Amino acid sequence: MKTDLTATRVIPILGDPVAQVSTPGIWNAQFARTGQDAVCVPISLPAQGLDAFVAWVRLSDNLPGFLTTIPHKAALTEACDRVEPDAQILGVVNTIRRDPDGTLIGEMFDGHGMLDAIEATGARIRGARIALCGAGAAGSAIAIQAIRRGAAGLFISDMVPAQAEALVARLAGLGKTELATGPAEMADAAEILINASPAGSPGMLDAPFPAKVIEAATCVADAVTDPAETVLIALARAAGVRVVQGAEMAAHQGARMRAFLGLEAG
Amino acid sequence: MKTDLTATRVIPILGDPVAQVSTPGIWNAQFARTGQDAVCVPISLPAQGLDAFVAWVRLSDNLPGFLTTIPHKAALTEACDRVEPDAQILGVVNTIRRDPDGTLIGEMFDGHGMLDAIEATGARIRGARIALCGAGAAGSAIAIQAIRRGAAGLFISDMVPAQAEALVARLAGLGKTELATGPAEMADAAEILINASPAGSPGMLDAPFPAKVIEAATCVADAVTDPAETVLIALARAAGVRVVQGAEMAAHQGARMRAFLGLEAG
Repeated sequence: MKTDLTATRVIPILGDPVAQVSTPGIWNAQFARTGQDAVCVPISLPAQGLDAFVAWVRLSDNLPGFLTTIPHKAALTEACDRVEPDAQILGVVNTIRRDPDGTLIGEMFDGHGMLDAIEATGARIRGARIALCGAGAAGSAIAIQAIRRGAAGLFISDMVPAQAEALVARLAGLGKTELATGPAEMADAAEILINASPAGSPGMLDAPFPAKVIEAATCVADAVTDPAETVLIALARAAGVRVVQGAEMAAHQGARMRAFLGLEAG
Repeated sequence: MKTDLTATRVIPILGDPVAQVSTPGIWNAQFARTGQDAVCVPISLPAQGLDAFVAWVRLSDNLPGFLTTIPHKAALTEACDRVEPDAQILGVVNTIRRDPDGTLIGEMFDGHGMLDAIEATGARIRGARIALCGAGAAGSAIAIQAIRRGAAGLFISDMVPAQAEALVARLAGLGKTELATGPAEMADAAEILINASPAGSPGMLDAPFPAKVIEAATCVADAVTDPAETVLIALARAAGVRVVQGAEMAAHQGARMRAFLGLEAG
């Protein structure tokens, strides 16, 4: 028996449902491009299966870790042996690394991915005034990264104002970034606009910021991937503002996740 | 969220080690060829992880089931809710189907695969005298299928004679096939020779049957896949005897397994 071989590394992505995730297709294309013997596979799993899933993953030496999407991001934070500091503040993880001894370490990369994508356009986060729509899991991760990277101001709006207020309260004291909340109409001083809400998705097509706010910005980023060209992106493009689409955020986030899992980020 | 989509079907193959298995490569090529949205992935898992593995698989609706290799074939027989009759006699399974309600049904396909491959050459099992070397898991499965398909005689040899004798005792009364055991030298009345022992693998290169037995046969089959051309196969070929290589057995077995899992056998 050839025990000198290394098995293909398998990276499951858990969800319930999971059929909608595009990660396996994107990652597997990246693995093919970079010549990595690895495969990302979707796993449909209800919450009551998480404990068992984590138990065997600890023992499997060809699993560098796994990814998760809705609705397991919070529950898996509990299942990790260690959670990176920002993910701990957020209370959610989307990537769980399995170290060779079976230790599981969780991190949340939505914020890194979005801000890496914005900076890749040449925009600077340090010193910038940022307006963020959406104070859910992705929005919260983006907000922390904006603070970590030295944004001058962060204005957070949400369809549920109390959710934006709760996020601001949770982030207070984390950095020197000036935090504020209010309706998106009040975001007109922001250079960078970020949508981390479902606005722009099928069924809620309206842009999350009014046209005058979009036109006053220098960079507009949207976490929504379906459609690729949201109303927000279209309005920004028409106004000559540089744009970041959801797919670019996903690509940067993917590279971060792969590096965290010990794969070639590529 | 697009919940009308169907997630890629994932078929893990468990082993410890698992890096040596060729099944994922073969199956994934078959899925690509037949246009099936499915992927077979190796999972390295020690025995203590089996219970947890089975627990989450029951809950995951994009897993039609899973495969297993050494050393889990016996332990997983216990984990199934139901084991098909021949696999129950064998006490081993290599394929576990997950029905939509989470029920797990185990079957062992080594015998089907080998005898399908032999019959695909035009050789007939019904009425044939067969000599089998190797009374382990694969050999036992082949022996049962030889009986089920009406072989006239089945002569079983094994490096450990007691193992061959135990198998014959276990198979007694299963059919009308005349059963016998002894050293492979005594197999000279057999029309069909089958190797299900490691003989021919690196480190134990000798053929499992003597030349005069090989030359007297009409069909010689070898379960060994590495090397593809074993000494047994080479000797048979040189003697003008029709041959079945390990890869052919694997291909036929794979088709049976996929059909059992509700995939296109193709």
